[in-house]
Amino acid sequence: MHGHLDAAFLPPEYPQFFQRGDGCRLWDVDGNEYVDLMCSWGPNLLGYRHPEIERAAAAQAAMGDVLNGPTPLMVELAETLVDQVPHADWAMFCKNGTDATTLGVVVARSATGRRKVLIARGSYHGIASWSTRPDAPGTTPEDHANTDYFDYNDVGSVESAVELAGENDLAAIVVTPIRHDIHRDLEPPTQMFAEGVRAICDRTGAALVLDDIRCGLRLDTRGSWEPYGVRPDLSAWSKAIANGDPIAVLLGAEPWREGANRVFATGSFWMAAAPMAAALATLEILRESDGIETMRRAGERLQNGLREQARAHGFEVTVSGPPQLPFLSFAHDANEERATIWTGECAKNGVYLHPYHNWFISVAHDDASIDRALEGTDEAFRALRNRDGAD
Amino acid sequence: MHGHLDAAFLPPEYPQFFQRGDGCRLWDVDGNEYVDLMCSWGPNLLGYRHPEIERAAAAQAAMGDVLNGPTPLMVELAETLVDQVPHADWAMFCKNGTDATTLGVVVARSATGRRKVLIARGSYHGIASWSTRPDAPGTTPEDHANTDYFDYNDVGSVESAVELAGENDLAAIVVTPIRHDIHRDLEPPTQMFAEGVRAICDRTGAALVLDDIRCGLRLDTRGSWEPYGVRPDLSAWSKAIANGDPIAVLLGAEPWREGANRVFATGSFWMAAAPMAAALATLEILRESDGIETMRRAGERLQNGLREQARAHGFEVTVSGPPQLPFLSFAHDANEERATIWTGECAKNGVYLHPYHNWFISVAHDDASIDRALEGTDEAFRALRNRDGAD
Repeated sequence: MHGHLDAAFLPPEYPQFFQRGDGCRLWDVDGNEYVDLMCSWGPNLLGYRHPEIERAAAAQAAMGDVLNGPTPLMVELAETLVDQVPHADWAMFCKNGTDATTLGVVVARSATGRRKVLIARGSYHGIASWSTRPDAPGTTPEDHANTDYFDYNDVGSVESAVELAGENDLAAIVVTPIRHDIHRDLEPPTQMFAEGVRAICDRTGAALVLDDIRCGLRLDTRGSWEPYGVRPDLSAWSKAIANGDPIAVLLGAEPWREGANRVFATGSFWMAAAPMAAALATLEILRESDGIETMRRAGERLQNGLREQARAHGFEVTVSGPPQLPFLSFAHDANEERATIWTGECAKNGVYLHPYHNWFISVAHDDASIDRALEGTDEAFRALRNRDGAD
Repeated sequence: MHGHLDAAFLPPEYPQFFQRGDGCRLWDVDGNEYVDLMCSWGPNLLGYRHPEIERAAAAQAAMGDVLNGPTPLMVELAETLVDQVPHADWAMFCKNGTDATTLGVVVARSATGRRKVLIARGSYHGIASWSTRPDAPGTTPEDHANTDYFDYNDVGSVESAVELAGENDLAAIVVTPIRHDIHRDLEPPTQMFAEGVRAICDRTGAALVLDDIRCGLRLDTRGSWEPYGVRPDLSAWSKAIANGDPIAVLLGAEPWREGANRVFATGSFWMAAAPMAAALATLEILRESDGIETMRRAGERLQNGLREQARAHGFEVTVSGPPQLPFLSFAHDANEERATIWTGECAKNGVYLHPYHNWFISVAHDDASIDRALEGTDEAFRALRNRDGAD
C-alpha cells in the first residue's frame, strides 16, 4: 500500500482492506461495521452508493463513458458549476485533485508569464513536486525552486514571501479555504487574511488559486470563501463533487481564460461521461436537499457530544474545525500517543475517524449514526482513562 | 474543450460531442454512426460497453468503489499483473497515465538519489512538466532543467545524452516501446536500440522506464518489449488495462521497491475498487480470448485494404505501425493537407480515424467492421482523387 489510505500510518486497530460501504457505514474485509467519519477522506458527500447518483452514472455508462470526445454532459456540468460558483466563468475538467491544483498553477504561469508560486507552510495541495516538501524523496531542488512559503493567517508573512519571490515574477498564491494541515487543530481563515491575499494578488497581478478540494461542497456550494466575500481567480475542486466518482475541475474567472486556452493538459479518462452524470446528480441533490445544513447539524451534534464526553471523562481536548470537517486533539499529547490510543479504541468500537487528519461528515450521517458514533467514542474515552488516567 | 479530444485539432468534418458507444462503433450527438478506429485513443480494448467487464465493475460498485482503503481486489490485481509481466515484482496503482510515468521518474530518483531523466525527442509521456516541451506554456525553465533528450533508435544519441546529463546524476531513461510520435509514421524499435538502452541503464545504475501506456495489452500481454527480450526496471500502464475504466499502474522490479516505498504518492480515487474489478475482467478476457491475435488480424486486414485502395486510386502512401496500432500517411504531404482532406472524408463516410496520431484496433473489430471501415476509406480516397487528382 502507498499513500493516504495506507493503514500503516494508523493505529494497529485499523483495517487495511474494506468490503463494502452503505450510506455513512463501512464494513472491513473481516465484516466489522463502522460509522465512517472519514467519508473516503472527502469523496463520500451524500452517502456511499447513493441510489439516485448511482442510477445517473449507470444510465450514462449504459450509453458510453470514455469515448472519442465528451458527451453534452460536459457542457451541462460546466454551465452548472459556472452558475453555482460566482467567481467562475469557465471550467476545465480533469481527474485527480493534484491535476486541478497543478492546472491552476500552470494556467497562472501561462497567463502571467511568471514562475513563482506561494503556498502556506504545512498546507497540502497534492503530490505534484511544486507543492511537496523540499526533502520529499524522488524530487529535485529544481522542482521546488519556484515555490516560496508563507504562514497561514499571517498577511505579513505573505508580504515577505512576495518580496522574496519578486513581485514581478509572482504567478500565483495557492491557499486552502481553512487551515486543515495534518497534526494540527483546524483553523478558519481570518477575514484579514482572506482579504489580504486577495489584495496582494490584485496588486501584483498574480492569480489567487483557492484549493477547495477538501472543503468544496461541504462549507458553501458557491465556494468556501464566498461567506468571506473573497473570490479567487481560479479554484480547484475534486473529491466530493461526484460523490466518489473520479473527477476534478479547475474553475476560472474570465481574465484567466486566455492563459488557460494556451496550456496543453489532458488525460485518457478526463472526459469520461459517467462521472459527469454523477457530478450533475450530486450537485442537484445537494442543492435541493439543503445538504450543507444537514452536514453542519450532524457535525455539531458530534462535536458537542465529544466535548461533553471528554469533560465527563476528565480529558482536556480541543474539538476544532467547521462541523462538516470536525477534528479532535488531546492536550498534553505532543507525540499523539493519546490520539493514537483513543482513535484505535474508536476503531475497535466501530467508529472510523483519524488521529491526525481532519474528519468528514456526509449528508448520510443522521442523528442515529452520530449517536452510534458517540457510543463508540465514549467507550474509547473510557478505555483511555482506564489505561492512562484522566488529565 | 482542451486536450487531445479537442476537435479543433481535427478536420472540420469531425464531431466534438458523442452520444454513445457500442463494441467498435460510436455515435455522435447528431446520431451519425462511425466505425471507431481510435478506441478513445486506447482505452477501448475489448469493445465499448463490454457486458462481462461492465458486470464485473457494476457488481463491485454495488458493494463499494471509493472507500477508506482498497478492497482485496487491489491485491488480486497486483498479483495478476506481477504474474503476467515478467519484469514486475510489485505494483503501485494510480489514475492517469501521467501519474504512472511521473511516478516512474519519482521512484527512479528516490532509488538512485539522482536527478536527470532522458527521453526521446518527440515522444509523449503525459502532461507533467518533466516531459513536456521546454516552451510549453505555463512551465518554467526549472521544470525542464533535469530532462535531456536523445533520438529514438539512435544508441549513439543516448550515449551523448548520458554524457550531457552526467552518468552519476542519471536517474532514468524513459522510453516508449515503439516510436509513436504524432505527425510521423510509426517505427518499431531496433533490437540494437532496445538492448542498447538496457545496457546503458545497467552500466549507469539508472532505471529503464518503459512507457507502455499506449501499447500496453495491444502488442504483448507481458509488456511490449518482451518479444525483444528486453525487460525494463519500471513500466507504466494505463489506458486499456480496465477497458476504459480509469486506472493506471506503475510496475517495478524488486531492486526498485525500496525507492518506491519512500515516495509519497496518492490520489483521492486511486484505490477505487470498481476499476480494479474492470481491470481483472479485462486481463482475464484478453488472455482467454487470444485478443491480441484478434486485433493483429483485424489491423492487418485494415492495413492491407488501405494499401490496395491507395494503389488503386493512384496515391503513394505509407501504412505503418504494428497492425494493432495502425497509421496511414500520404507522400508529398508536408503540411498534412491530404491527410486532413482524406480523414475528413473518412469521418463523413462513417470512419473515425486520425490525420496525425496513430489509430487503435480493438478486439471488437470483426471482419465486417473492418470491411465497413474500408468502404468509408475507399470513398475518401475517391473524394480526394476527384478533388486533387492522384500522385
